[in-house]
Amino acid sequence: MVKSMFSSKYVACLVSSIILNALFIINIFVGGQWNLSWTSRAAAEAETVAAISCSGHGRAYLDGLVVDGNEPVCECNTCYAGSDCSQFIPDCAANADGGDPLFLEPFWMRHVASSALVEAGWHRMSYTFNDHTFISKELERIIRKLHAIVGNAVTENRFIIFGAGSTQVLNAAAYALSLENTSSSTGIVASVPYYTLYKGQAEYFSSAKFKFQGDAYTWRKKSDAITNMIEFVTSPNNPDGRLNKQILHGPNVKTIYDRAYYWPHFTPIPAPADEDLMVFTLSKLTGHAGSRFGMTAHININSMGVSMDSQLRAFKLLKAVLEGEGKEIFDFAYQTMKARWERLTMALSSSKRFSLQKNNPQYCIFYNRVREFSPAYAWLKCERKDDKDCYAVLKAAKIIGRQGNKFGSEDHYVRLSLVRSHDDFNILIDRLNKLVSEEDGAKTM
Amino acid sequence: MVKSMFSSKYVACLVSSIILNALFIINIFVGGQWNLSWTSRAAAEAETVAAISCSGHGRAYLDGLVVDGNEPVCECNTCYAGSDCSQFIPDCAANADGGDPLFLEPFWMRHVASSALVEAGWHRMSYTFNDHTFISKELERIIRKLHAIVGNAVTENRFIIFGAGSTQVLNAAAYALSLENTSSSTGIVASVPYYTLYKGQAEYFSSAKFKFQGDAYTWRKKSDAITNMIEFVTSPNNPDGRLNKQILHGPNVKTIYDRAYYWPHFTPIPAPADEDLMVFTLSKLTGHAGSRFGMTAHININSMGVSMDSQLRAFKLLKAVLEGEGKEIFDFAYQTMKARWERLTMALSSSKRFSLQKNNPQYCIFYNRVREFSPAYAWLKCERKDDKDCYAVLKAAKIIGRQGNKFGSEDHYVRLSLVRSHDDFNILIDRLNKLVSEEDGAKTM
Repeated sequence: MVKSMFSSKYVACLVSSIILNALFIINIFVGGQWNLSWTSRAAAEAETVAAISCSGHGRAYLDGLVVDGNEPVCECNTCYAGSDCSQFIPDCAANADGGDPLFLEPFWMRHVASSALVEAGWHRMSYTFNDHTFISKELERIIRKLHAIVGNAVTENRFIIFGAGSTQVLNAAAYALSLENTSSSTGIVASVPYYTLYKGQAEYFSSAKFKFQGDAYTWRKKSDAITNMIEFVTSPNNPDGRLNKQILHGPNVKTIYDRAYYWPHFTPIPAPADEDLMVFTLSKLTGHAGSRFGMTAHININSMGVSMDSQLRAFKLLKAVLEGEGKEIFDFAYQTMKARWERLTMALSSSKRFSLQKNNPQYCIFYNRVREFSPAYAWLKCERKDDKDCYAVLKAAKIIGRQGNKFGSEDHYVRLSLVRSHDDFNILIDRLNKLVSEEDGAKTM
Repeated sequence: MVKSMFSSKYVACLVSSIILNALFIINIFVGGQWNLSWTSRAAAEAETVAAISCSGHGRAYLDGLVVDGNEPVCECNTCYAGSDCSQFIPDCAANADGGDPLFLEPFWMRHVASSALVEAGWHRMSYTFNDHTFISKELERIIRKLHAIVGNAVTENRFIIFGAGSTQVLNAAAYALSLENTSSSTGIVASVPYYTLYKGQAEYFSSAKFKFQGDAYTWRKKSDAITNMIEFVTSPNNPDGRLNKQILHGPNVKTIYDRAYYWPHFTPIPAPADEDLMVFTLSKLTGHAGSRFGMTAHININSMGVSMDSQLRAFKLLKAVLEGEGKEIFDFAYQTMKARWERLTMALSSSKRFSLQKNNPQYCIFYNRVREFSPAYAWLKCERKDDKDCYAVLKAAKIIGRQGNKFGSEDHYVRLSLVRSHDDFNILIDRLNKLVSEEDGAKTM
């Protein structure tokens, strides 16, 4: 009896032990953790920080502020506060100003394993790649593949150039296209409403090479003149989402197509873009604005190429995008933008005071059907004659947009960003609902 | 008997099983791999690529070229070839041209666990940090701590500004210091021999704001003139390692101190630098040239801040640097540079044809003793009158340096980079030994 119990205890122990071993083995293999050595410390650190709860209204980061200890603290979204970001700040203004593309963050939370990056301390310390270029050939290959899948750009027989964000690339392109060895400067134009940065850059750098010359339309009749012109064509346009085409033509005109928003999230893709100089950016594709990755002679001398870290990050993110059919991110992003436009349109449906831009549906070769636009920005108009300062009208209702005059337009217009975080968008809709609901009342501020 | 054997087998099995359990537990805890989930796939990928052997003469990278399969291939150092980089190319020229700081790569190979970075797909997607700046506060804190430990810069009451490499920061500083709203442009000067880029940048951007005006010495007597001047002071100097001081003084003169090489690897540190505008860079400190991280109005408009990836990388690397006493990297780097200078001096010791710059030993507050300089570059002079083109003399001997004229100097001089990889340096010394050994023969070609 004793022996028998002894034996059965043994058996029980052995079975437990074997099961435990099996679990370890499964855990190690399934987790792919077999033999992990130098990466495990950093991996554990990253997972610890990622596991910090910020109530869904904030996030802790590896390089975040550290208070009392070693772990970074929660960095809360606008209008949220507290150590775990759980407190809503009631009188807080809705931020609909900048184009921070946080609407894509949930996608990356869901695809955290495929998009995680592990970088060794000795990774690509050189200024250049082995072929003496500043550009990763594998990254270039992935970018061409992505454009082929989406069908939004012809990349055959084109050079691919990288920059620290499309901002730098746009500036580089202007330098490259402005004529060398000429005493007269090149004029820079864009059609109203236009993206603020073109004007700001041209004026800030005050290069003898070029000068901002305002609205492209006013130069249409002068296009046979001898002045050399560069036209920036943003298509889809920022702020109004229109698929702009160039206004100026002729031997003295060069065109830079800003294609930052030419992705199925934001617009029907009627045909692959096929311009001589097209500028794309990671920030409006994957949402990684902070990585500063857009698309050379100028860039070398300005900052000696793009960070190898940014290139590796872009490589990893685009590889994650291309897993499976490579369409998942577009479906997620399009559904998100579509749902936001539906909520925005609903919020303003009963309003006579505010109107939105109209872009007629077009055939999209990516979705093989006619579809609506779902632009990154609403180009809101205050319809009342008295509402000359639409920005102030919205600000009084605790909504921060961007003034029409910043786009070369009237101040009856305000741009509202729709690509920000879920929190920012929700607060924006709440504020708009309230504003519209007060419209028929006696006083509307 | 049967029972007894059965029992003892059980015992043996159980003991083995328990030992195996213990091993797994130890492995998991010591490795810090407990519960690793979303990071394990990327960690395994990174370790697989890192384990690819390239014979010590090359390296495989995560984003390297892929041939026949999924694993990246070896990228070989100059003068090495073959799928595993094991073949030496005999007639290959020694590359001593660019300042690629690969001499620090072995340090990071040794500190691979502390310097590994794991970045989530959702890491800092915004343009800005939570405080609406483009700058990581924790990174700033670490940079101040590092300067305090080394004693090479006063950082109290100073702003810290980041840029995409010191190249961009230097350019930004010139924009910031050139006067606004003035019709006359600011002159840019540097003392000969000077770093090539200052001239190249000023000329390339051809901003109406500033114009390159050559050697600072020629302007010394004109410093009471009304022209606004910016003097770039590189200290230690590139190419000759001298601890330059500004040449121009006066109310119209602004000074930008390029402190890229002011680290104990390269120079005695006589006192903390205490200038108004000092520029440092990660590339010459940790060797990460490819990360493009140097030290805001100009940078915002040019590229909207520095990549969050580069900032996170810099954060991780500098944290690794500061582990322990925070002096290990300097000891490694100084010993490496010192040993290289000893080998170089030895190679040229019997030569009357070639000479090196002389920098007298100085007291170093980091090492608390008088010590020699060990600059990043040799400023080699061809002493023979006939050797007017020193670059060509070296090139014929299969050594690629950089021409003196690129530093505003005579072509009797050539700059040789001493910070490149172990392989590059070894080949350089071999070629120099051969060249010097032929010196007393009839023909030296």
